[in-house]
This record gives sequence, structure tokens and C-alpha cells, in this order.
Amino acid sequence: MKLQQILIAVLLVASAPSQAQETRYELHGVAGPYVVEQLVNGFSQPIAIEFLPDGKALVAQRNLGVITRVDFRNGERVDIAAMPGEFKVSDAGLHDVELHPDYTHTGWIYITYSEGDPHYSTLVIDRIRLDGDKIRDRERIFTADAYAETLYHYGGRMQFLEGYLYVSVGDRQHPERAQDRSNHTGSILRLHDDGRVPVDNPFVGLEDEAKPVRPEIWSYGHRNPQGLYVNPQTGELWSSEHGPRGGDEVNRIVKGANYGWAEISFGFEYEGGPIGKGIVSQEGMQQPVWVYVPSIAPSDLVFYQGEAFPAWRGSWLIGALALTHLNRLALQDGAVVLEERLVNGLLGRIRSIAVDSAGLVYLGSDLGGIWRLRPL
Amino acid sequence: MKLQQILIAVLLVASAPSQAQETRYELHGVAGPYVVEQLVNGFSQPIAIEFLPDGKALVAQRNLGVITRVDFRNGERVDIAAMPGEFKVSDAGLHDVELHPDYTHTGWIYITYSEGDPHYSTLVIDRIRLDGDKIRDRERIFTADAYAETLYHYGGRMQFLEGYLYVSVGDRQHPERAQDRSNHTGSILRLHDDGRVPVDNPFVGLEDEAKPVRPEIWSYGHRNPQGLYVNPQTGELWSSEHGPRGGDEVNRIVKGANYGWAEISFGFEYEGGPIGKGIVSQEGMQQPVWVYVPSIAPSDLVFYQGEAFPAWRGSWLIGALALTHLNRLALQDGAVVLEERLVNGLLGRIRSIAVDSAGLVYLGSDLGGIWRLRPL
Repeated sequence: MKLQQILIAVLLVASAPSQAQETRYELHGVAGPYVVEQLVNGFSQPIAIEFLPDGKALVAQRNLGVITRVDFRNGERVDIAAMPGEFKVSDAGLHDVELHPDYTHTGWIYITYSEGDPHYSTLVIDRIRLDGDKIRDRERIFTADAYAETLYHYGGRMQFLEGYLYVSVGDRQHPERAQDRSNHTGSILRLHDDGRVPVDNPFVGLEDEAKPVRPEIWSYGHRNPQGLYVNPQTGELWSSEHGPRGGDEVNRIVKGANYGWAEISFGFEYEGGPIGKGIVSQEGMQQPVWVYVPSIAPSDLVFYQGEAFPAWRGSWLIGALALTHLNRLALQDGAVVLEERLVNGLLGRIRSIAVDSAGLVYLGSDLGGIWRLRPL
Repeated sequence: MKLQQILIAVLLVASAPSQAQETRYELHGVAGPYVVEQLVNGFSQPIAIEFLPDGKALVAQRNLGVITRVDFRNGERVDIAAMPGEFKVSDAGLHDVELHPDYTHTGWIYITYSEGDPHYSTLVIDRIRLDGDKIRDRERIFTADAYAETLYHYGGRMQFLEGYLYVSVGDRQHPERAQDRSNHTGSILRLHDDGRVPVDNPFVGLEDEAKPVRPEIWSYGHRNPQGLYVNPQTGELWSSEHGPRGGDEVNRIVKGANYGWAEISFGFEYEGGPIGKGIVSQEGMQQPVWVYVPSIAPSDLVFYQGEAFPAWRGSWLIGALALTHLNRLALQDGAVVLEERLVNGLLGRIRSIAVDSAGLVYLGSDLGGIWRLRPL
């Protein structure tokens, strides 16, 4: 079987106005043939797809600042929440939507977004409760000390693990702040579900040169992690991170660890020239599990353990913005032994990934569509 | 099917003294289970494996400077040729052995090796003809102008394509010479089978700043290509190249092209700090097809189109020295869509690769063994 991308058919399907033209591809991956089909269209930068218990999904549209509830089975959609304020440009906007681990009882939906104005902004976390299609409760649970005049590198991906809420904060284009633990810039944080600081966080009560270390910090030295997910087989938290030109990373997140940005990196400045010390490793700093050179611009990250694609079980799936594909990393004894580039060049910038209860894979593309992968 | 390396059995087999202990593994790759078994042992840096029409193979032992004829079917071996001189240290020694495309009629066997002394050496090509186990004819067909005081970066891999002999020459640890076309350092050369210069080579008759460009040069700006092979499906010549720390490359070789070393690179100096201009691309310089970061230290390269592993057809196989595995790159529309790391960490430094007429894959390891991969 030759590994060749075979476009079999383009179907025109009668549908709602915003999804006037649907497309379907039959492709071959190393694990066999699969189908990619467009389910809906017309989304603005769908940065997060989160399934609800009833099988519907929440889709966060980044620059539009709107969370939409979608039923992929019939295409029905309703806008249910919006980011407050008008600050939705460049990287700013919505960054993630995540259900409370006990959503069925608590009803809490967590959202991250940029807050401020075009000259001074940061990342915040609200949680909301719905009453039908309307917001009933809204609470600010956390405001990151990651204010900057730039409009980039917010991070903002959330993940629950053992009841704690982890959230990534980008370097806000101030690389030097990623090593400064007196602010939240360039860190992964760990919070209680109401925003309080867990007492067993690694830096609680510590000081750096007479400045208190932010007690929410779980790990630091990150650049712009837009993927954060738990491998349920091991309980490990992993991240996917935008590096500089070259040097995108996938990291295994360890409590209290320093991931080296901007002291060490495999990448270069986009305008040329070395990063930090121009070295790739240093005592006391973590090395990535995988590095993408040239940059793929990794977005969302999920661990696959679904039924639909047995050969993908135990793989990480990572969206690629710049190199426009779905990246699959398979592991063996903790080391990557396979990198596969799926739907390569086909769907535009892949910004979000979700897996449903049957193991089918959903991809949100900056072209505006949500696509589904299923075995042929 | 979980992608997991499963060691099933270790067999002790009665055999010749130099191969007292043979080992067999059953492993799982993404294309299914396969068996790795040791055929022979006791080779010193087996840098090239070349099959003869009768099914026996020539194995070049780098630092030993000896070419041995081996019958993998019964373990019989005989040393048939040696590198002249005693200059067999560091990277110096034998680099490749290659049959003439019409070997059955011409009988020519081409060998590359280091010539000189520990303070001044270069790369040369001889061709020999055998009479039984003895050398009958020996001709020097080429001496590269790649003299240096170092003992590293000779390149030396050969490949015939459409009757022409291509050979790689490393930068001899003089990076600045790779851009200087008045010598052969850091180049891939194209010769007639007797060493003469083809008149349609890209730089015949050209001068650089009043210095004649070496007319043998086909492409330049290379660091240390130890793999050179033709994709018979496309007729393209590809190379695998040792980069600096980070920045190992796989390249599609284009007539007359500049591969950028040491002006541009994805890598760093091993001691830290940028390479050349600290940039990864520049107008007029080729970009690699694939980059390995961190470095795997690529050695030999072959294009797989055998029968035994149908799923591997159309893949490049690359040996890895530092990261001790067999690397498989599968392509789709000319872009890499898959990187698989086979026999990961199992066989030591993989220095040579060959495929027999049935499509079974042979690997020469610096641990001294030749191993064979076959489907389970």
C-alpha cells in the first residue's frame, strides 16, 4: 500500500447557508484509509471544541469572541456566550473553553480570554453557568499577572487533572519574563477549580531575590503553549508550544520544572540570530520530548485513546497552523518513534482538536470549517 | 494495536566463533510486526553493505580498512580487499563500496577511502576488479581536492545514476570551504565511471573571483553527507547529512544548487552559539526536505521499494548513529508525512543499510553485527 494522498470525491451537499458547500476526502494514512468530511462551516478561528454530555459541542471562536453550541449531527448552532469587551484582534480574543470535571453536577464552563485594551492586556479565566442558551452565573476566578502592551502570546489553554485546573500563559512577547517567577508570564499554572492556590504547588512561600514567587506557578520557562492535555494512561500533563523560528516543542510537564525559554532553545529569532545564550540545553532545564524544525506552529493537543482508530491509540495529536496538518506522535517507552502528518495541506490552519465518545476526531480550521476524521 | 517494542525471545545459536551469540527480536512498527535477527558479528564499523549478483555481499569495515565478502546464508566470509596504507583512525578509513551499474560485464567495484597521513589527508576513489578472492586490477580514478589536517568529515558515499558516479565530499571541518567552489570540500561531485568530468556538469568552465570552479561539482554547501541514493521512481538523487548540533538534514539534490552550509543551518555549534549568519534560509540556497532536531547523526540512506515490507515502499530509510535507530521517512507529493523510528535503541549505532532482492533490510551496526529485518 503506497502512502499517497488520494482525493476521491468532492460532494456538494444541500445544507444551511453558512455551510453551503461540504467536502469529503478519502485519504490514506499509515494506519489505513480514512475519510475527512466537513460538518459545518462559517466559524471564525475555532480555537477550541469541547463536547458536552449530550453530544453537542461548544466551539470557541477566537477573534469573534463568541462561544457557539453546535450539534454536528444536524448542523444546528446557537451562540451562547461572548467575551466581554471589544478587544478581539491579533492573538487576542477567546483562547479556550473547558468543562468542569464534574460538569453534570456543577454546570461550570471555564473560558480563557484576553482582557484589557490594545495597549495593555492580559489573560483571564471566567467560569459561567448556563440556563438554556443564556448565561445564569459568571465568575472571574483568575487574572494572570501577564500584562503587556503586545497583542500576542497569551497561551490560555486549560486542562483539568485530579480536580485541579492547569492553564498555560504565554510570554506575551517578553521572553525575559519567562524566567522571572515573580509574574505569571511564560508559565503553566495550577489552580483550584475556584481559582485558589493549592498549598502543595511547588513555589508556595518562595522568594526570588526578595520578590515573592507567584504561588500559582507549576512550571515556567515556556514561550507560548497553546496545547495542554493529560495522558490518562500515565496521568502526565503534556504541552505543545510555539517556539521561535524552528524550535516548536512538545513537553512533558514536571512539577516545578524550568523549560528554558528564553535561555535555551532549538530555534532562532525570526529575523535571524540566536535565542538567548544560543545553546540548546543547560543543567537544571528540561529538554523537550519532540522538536519541530522547521516550525509547524503547533496549536491544540489531545491524547488519543478512542475506539475508531485503534492504531492511533496512545498517540498525541497536535494541530499545525503554519504547516497546515494534523500531527501524530506515537510513543514507545516514553520516546517518540513516529511522527505522522495527516490531512497535510488540505484543511488550512488546524486550530483545535476534539475526540468524541466513539473516537472520531474533530478538527477546527481557520478556513472556518469543522471537519471530522473517521475510518473508511 | 499498541505501538510497543516487545522483546519476545533471545536465542542462542551455535555458530562460528566470531558470531557466538545471535539474537532475535520481535518488534511492532506502525506497518505491523517484524523480526530483527543478527546474521553475523565481529565487524569493525561496517560502513557499507553492497550485494553482489550471486547473493553474497561486500561489507566495508571503516577503521579496519578491509572489504569482506560475506554470505549471509551460511556466515562464510573472506577478506578480499584492503585500503592501502595505515591511515585508519577517527573518521578516516573506508567510506563506501559500490558496484559499477554494469558490474556483470565490467567487474568494477568502486571504493572510497581516506588517503594521506594524520596531519594531511583527503578522499580518494579507486576501482578494483577481482579474480576470485584476489584483486586483479586497481585504478585510482579520482583524488578530491579536499586536503585538510583534520581527521573528520570525509563524506565518501557513492551512487550511480544514469551511468554517472556521484560522490559526496564532507567539509573536512573547514566549514568556510563548503561555499568555496575552487575546491571539492563540502560538495557532491558527478564523474564519468572512469573519473573524467562530464561536459554537462553545471560549473564546467566557470570561474569564481578569477579562480576556476572545480568542474566535478554537482552541488555544494554541504557539511558531511554520509548517505547518497537515488529514488528510482523519480530519478532524483537524495542525501542524508550530518549537521551541527541540531540541523541534520535530508536533501533533494538539484544540479548546481547551493545547500547553504556554513552560511545557513537549522543547527548550532556543539559548544553553543549560532552557525554562520545564524539564519535558516537565504535567497538562492536550498532548504532541506527534512531536519532532525535534536540530531540523530544520520549515516547511510536507501530508498525502499522492496516486496517484503509493502507498507514501506516509497520510504527513505536512514541509519542513525547518535540516536541509534533506523529512521523511515514516507513521502506524499514530495513532502515528508511520516517519520518512524524503528529498532529504537536496540542495535547501537546504525552505520549501513542494504536491501536484498526479496526486500529484506540489512543493517550494519557499530556493535559489530549485521542484522536483518523481515516481516513476522
